[in-house]
Amino acid sequence: MQIKENNIHDFHINNILKKLDQKDLDAILVANFNNIYYLSGYLSTSFAFLVLKENPIIFVSEMDLENAKNNSSIDIVKYESFEKMVEYFKEEEIRNLAIESDLTANVYDKFKDFNLTISDVISTERMIKSDGEIKKIMKASDIAHKSLIELDVRAKQEKAALEWECAYELAYLMRKNGASAESFETIFASGLVSSLPHSTPRHHILDTPVLVDYGCKFEGYCSDTTRTFIYTEKQEEISSIVLEAHDKAIDAIKAGAKACEVDKVARDIITEYGYGDNFIHSTGHSLGLDIHENPSISLKDKTVLENNMVLTVEPGIYLEGEFGIRIEDMVLVDKKAKLIGNLPQIL
Amino acid sequence: MQIKENNIHDFHINNILKKLDQKDLDAILVANFNNIYYLSGYLSTSFAFLVLKENPIIFVSEMDLENAKNNSSIDIVKYESFEKMVEYFKEEEIRNLAIESDLTANVYDKFKDFNLTISDVISTERMIKSDGEIKKIMKASDIAHKSLIELDVRAKQEKAALEWECAYELAYLMRKNGASAESFETIFASGLVSSLPHSTPRHHILDTPVLVDYGCKFEGYCSDTTRTFIYTEKQEEISSIVLEAHDKAIDAIKAGAKACEVDKVARDIITEYGYGDNFIHSTGHSLGLDIHENPSISLKDKTVLENNMVLTVEPGIYLEGEFGIRIEDMVLVDKKAKLIGNLPQIL
Repeated sequence: MQIKENNIHDFHINNILKKLDQKDLDAILVANFNNIYYLSGYLSTSFAFLVLKENPIIFVSEMDLENAKNNSSIDIVKYESFEKMVEYFKEEEIRNLAIESDLTANVYDKFKDFNLTISDVISTERMIKSDGEIKKIMKASDIAHKSLIELDVRAKQEKAALEWECAYELAYLMRKNGASAESFETIFASGLVSSLPHSTPRHHILDTPVLVDYGCKFEGYCSDTTRTFIYTEKQEEISSIVLEAHDKAIDAIKAGAKACEVDKVARDIITEYGYGDNFIHSTGHSLGLDIHENPSISLKDKTVLENNMVLTVEPGIYLEGEFGIRIEDMVLVDKKAKLIGNLPQIL
Repeated sequence: MQIKENNIHDFHINNILKKLDQKDLDAILVANFNNIYYLSGYLSTSFAFLVLKENPIIFVSEMDLENAKNNSSIDIVKYESFEKMVEYFKEEEIRNLAIESDLTANVYDKFKDFNLTISDVISTERMIKSDGEIKKIMKASDIAHKSLIELDVRAKQEKAALEWECAYELAYLMRKNGASAESFETIFASGLVSSLPHSTPRHHILDTPVLVDYGCKFEGYCSDTTRTFIYTEKQEEISSIVLEAHDKAIDAIKAGAKACEVDKVARDIITEYGYGDNFIHSTGHSLGLDIHENPSISLKDKTVLENNMVLTVEPGIYLEGEFGIRIEDMVLVDKKAKLIGNLPQIL
């Protein structure tokens, strides 16, 4: 997909209009900030409603008007009330209205007199990344990997640094190296709490192992990587099982494979070693503007993988009361999966 | 309200059960993380569904089970599928089901065979803070105020620091001083972009004025403060108008007053000086576990203020192409509003 960046919004919009038309839908009401950004270049800071149809418009809160007018490729109008929006929909003769699956119930309720259909047309469109999007994800990944090396976790461990200080310094380094923000709150989990997949950085001196799950954003696009710094034989033994699952899952990723098949490859390996019950989440997920996008690499997701999807592969083994190990990389789907970046899996 | 901290969840639950019963509702389905935390002490990191009824339970994702069991006062079960949840609801003979206004459409859709009512019963309950909650907000505020003083914005301006560096250092100081996190991404907006109420910190040397809107969390509870560091006569003139609106709005806050009346006080003053069109947001909002809670101090909100509400008061004047000034404090509603903290309004 060689689409010029300045035409990318029109390209996305036209693809979605075609899909709406195929399903006999007059318009889709878009409230998700990243979907609005994807379609217009404008990232809301409070609330906004994009009405996607032949002549799309965005209803924007008064406090964001200046920002929206400076950044949106779609016409902007000031939001006044849901009642006025409903009037507008009627004037535009919108009857069959698609809504997004994450629209909130209170908004859903305001539009219930329309013929509503929940549609994932935009998240489906976002599954396949353009060259421009892939470059931004790769850039985010480069910044993140460089920053983790600069942080030097083993030196921090020797110096008895605190979990939260390390998390802050990593965030600082990523921003210094060109990121706009973290992709999510960095997980810096050491010792016992590494068995909690989403532990929050504590006011505790680094114990072992040290699990670091982190990423940054570059021009809106996320990276997501996990490394676990290991120190004992038991940690090494578990880590080698996780790494085998990680590598084999990546080998199984190619255009045409199903997401659930990839999950099964990782899960079967961990199960063979007797740790199936300790692998308590799915093997991975897509990412882009959001840190979690469709598809997920889970037993339930039957999505057929396609070229230019970007996926994480992140098997883990969590031993409650002992420790947890997770290793995560991002890959680009092609005939074979291409690893994004070259950060060693064992540091 | 002198409720012991260890009974606080039961107290909240009983209040809400009474209200559900009055409305002939069998249960409420709660997916909002902070509402689940408010009712159980467990803060989800992925997804969770609390079913609030006589014997409440929480459906938790497998990866969060260890965390949930360690922290929740309510029984935990492993989430398997929406279908299993629907079966459970039927076994429990739930027919009239309340859902929250921010429940997403895809979940709403799974439960549409029940008699659904959108209810704000929990957010209404959360409007009035307990003594324990007020103490946590005050502690968050103390940490935040102390940290802004430590940062010394005027010194940063003299040293030609970057907006994002200042934002990071402020976040670092708040964490060092005892906060668990920022309440929201700090706004550090200088020069032209101070006219954007929600500007994101840039890789730019601090210009003038410097608008800092920031806060931190202590045991889950948020603070929210804005100071604008002014440097010119014009900035001083606008700042004095904003401060007058700020002070008079606080004077108007008392139990029995309506939220919209307080907004009108601030808006009328700014309008009298000719800047009505430049005050492009509401005067304030409640806060607690969330940075924005009900009520809002806006022309549309007719909520009658009650003792032990905590509100922000944050009028602003935004001159597109020039600069913006906002001054924000938190107050506790009582017979008279009590200012939280003693950070000078002009620094």
